[in-house]
Amino acid sequence: MDLDYVLHTYARDYTHFVKGSGARLFDESGRDYMDFGSGIAVCSVGYGNERLAKAISEQAYNLIHTSNLYGIEPQARLAKRLVELSGYDMRVFFANSGAEANEGALKIARKFGEQLGGIKRYQIITLDSSFHGRTISTLKATAQSKMHDYFGPYPDGFVYAKDLAEIPSKISDVTCAVLLELVQGEGGITPFKREEILHLEKFLKAKNILLMIDEVQTGIYRSGELFASQKYGINPDVITTAKGLGGGVPIGAVMTTLKDIFVPGEHGSTFGGNFLSTRAGLEVLEILEEERSSGRLERTITCFKDRLKDLQKSYPEIFIEEVGLGLMRGLRMRDVESLEKFIKKAKENRVLILKSGKNTARFLPPLTITLEEMEEGFKRLEKAIGDLG
Amino acid sequence: MDLDYVLHTYARDYTHFVKGSGARLFDESGRDYMDFGSGIAVCSVGYGNERLAKAISEQAYNLIHTSNLYGIEPQARLAKRLVELSGYDMRVFFANSGAEANEGALKIARKFGEQLGGIKRYQIITLDSSFHGRTISTLKATAQSKMHDYFGPYPDGFVYAKDLAEIPSKISDVTCAVLLELVQGEGGITPFKREEILHLEKFLKAKNILLMIDEVQTGIYRSGELFASQKYGINPDVITTAKGLGGGVPIGAVMTTLKDIFVPGEHGSTFGGNFLSTRAGLEVLEILEEERSSGRLERTITCFKDRLKDLQKSYPEIFIEEVGLGLMRGLRMRDVESLEKFIKKAKENRVLILKSGKNTARFLPPLTITLEEMEEGFKRLEKAIGDLG
Repeated sequence: MDLDYVLHTYARDYTHFVKGSGARLFDESGRDYMDFGSGIAVCSVGYGNERLAKAISEQAYNLIHTSNLYGIEPQARLAKRLVELSGYDMRVFFANSGAEANEGALKIARKFGEQLGGIKRYQIITLDSSFHGRTISTLKATAQSKMHDYFGPYPDGFVYAKDLAEIPSKISDVTCAVLLELVQGEGGITPFKREEILHLEKFLKAKNILLMIDEVQTGIYRSGELFASQKYGINPDVITTAKGLGGGVPIGAVMTTLKDIFVPGEHGSTFGGNFLSTRAGLEVLEILEEERSSGRLERTITCFKDRLKDLQKSYPEIFIEEVGLGLMRGLRMRDVESLEKFIKKAKENRVLILKSGKNTARFLPPLTITLEEMEEGFKRLEKAIGDLG
Repeated sequence: MDLDYVLHTYARDYTHFVKGSGARLFDESGRDYMDFGSGIAVCSVGYGNERLAKAISEQAYNLIHTSNLYGIEPQARLAKRLVELSGYDMRVFFANSGAEANEGALKIARKFGEQLGGIKRYQIITLDSSFHGRTISTLKATAQSKMHDYFGPYPDGFVYAKDLAEIPSKISDVTCAVLLELVQGEGGITPFKREEILHLEKFLKAKNILLMIDEVQTGIYRSGELFASQKYGINPDVITTAKGLGGGVPIGAVMTTLKDIFVPGEHGSTFGGNFLSTRAGLEVLEILEEERSSGRLERTITCFKDRLKDLQKSYPEIFIEEVGLGLMRGLRMRDVESLEKFIKKAKENRVLILKSGKNTARFLPPLTITLEEMEEGFKRLEKAIGDLG
């Protein structure tokens, strides 16, 4: 493959997959890899999913896209489905990625802060080790200083807290919102404690400050529920989501209880919410809601978690701790070197896993992974551990 | 259709299309509309295009998405094809929209400005009446003051020039780039004069300031060439594109001669350049390059332009001027009221056209529009004009 025409923004492994089926990817020579990463939580219904492929195919032959100047029926249905399945009394705007969904959230927060009267509230508090996207503003919202080289001037108005406990002390007269992930995908996969989140929610409601939950990675049933916010039992003012929603078709969404925050012309997206991406989103939600309501998803989560916990207990000198929520899980390791070696050896034994932060192996298997695929994947991981020497 | 779950960001016309074929969209009752807007330049190969649908369908059954951590063959091929067909010695990064492509351009410009040594150059000059996107930074790059309500603080470092001639006087020690559209999609569809653009290019090269061309709307053969930059005979440092590239599948791209501007980790996109969107992009480019090289595209452009010019000449009291480049064309009208009435009457006669700026009717037909479709569309437009009273 001639990658000389692509800007080098990824430290790419040049394995080249040509086909996928279930949790498996196949390379050119037909070798199968068990994918415990799902293209970074994107391939929520696995590879080669017949129902999703059929929905996309039918829509592609029929109608891919019209402008948002006209009604788009699957968009209206997907918005309704997200609201119904979440139970949140919200309206939805569709974008094309998690970054774009978060841009929408930032705009909602800023307009909310302006509408309150008095001095404009514009500051948004985010957390250390967060990740919110690659646009200039979402990079600035991402409280990792290594992300803030080169691309400034960045917009003002982002304030960082080192943890949940520090948020109250960071609040000022001009704070309009707090934006956070309930489980930080790039920050080590440790879920925030439920009682701390509930406490924060109550605190922010009293201050009339928006609680905005970035569910780009935790959303779309990865936690076991449509949104991790439901698992926590909170009622956010804004939720963003993306990755798993289209099963691979680019789509993002921002949902809010502030149903009239925008008037026409204040936000938009040419592609956002088009026929192809929202038809894919509808099929993904139907497939995954069946997984959830049948109890299969909960069994898969329990089984995957148990296998990881067993691994941690069997090799406590390699894996310090098992963490996570639903099918978003991590094995904490000693340091970045041992993590990278583990990922490399896993790859050599044909299991794909990801990095999170400096020392956590991240597992984001397809939500439809079968018992057989799990067993085979963990068998290979055992071999990879044997190869660590 | 129940749109109560969608945030109201569009002054939507509730016509609801269910199917498309060629340049025609069909509503629920089977009535056909001739689409002279292509979903805002997106449906470049028309609706229900069999070749595009087949490519998307095959890819959907096979493999929709993997992470950019691995090689993605259609991404590599699409990057190569964009470079080969444009003749520009560049590398490509894939995003999911025009806004994201422009965010990439802003990041390239800012890093370029930092790498030069001495004081950091960070200012980017953009033009009045431009449109560069809906993220916070691309809104700020959009030099329309009505776009700058509510969502601040915006990033510093954007300087606006009222026209090309004013650019030199706006340059300072900290200017790193100029970003502009060769034909402003939201600014009235008047192409900038070739000699003025050539003069600007020479001026900027001498000052080592980047010339960045936003081809989100002008790109992908809308001008008659892959990029309008080729039509103008310029060699930009950065080109962004999106709308027509995927034929409706969300995709954007930023291309640059600065091949090593990013190192891994400095930019990225989870969905960007995935199997589905780049496979669609490859098929779109093949279809449209055949249109171009066969001479069909040039004939279509000439015919469409002649029909518009005839219309202008027949109704000089309604249409002040015919403007445009390739299949991106405008009819200048007296004021916003007459424009809105014309668009409404056209719609009633089942032709879809768009607005640009305050007083220009914008025409962006599919690039594969047939003579029959054109004839039928213009026949309906004549009726619409009759209905203006």
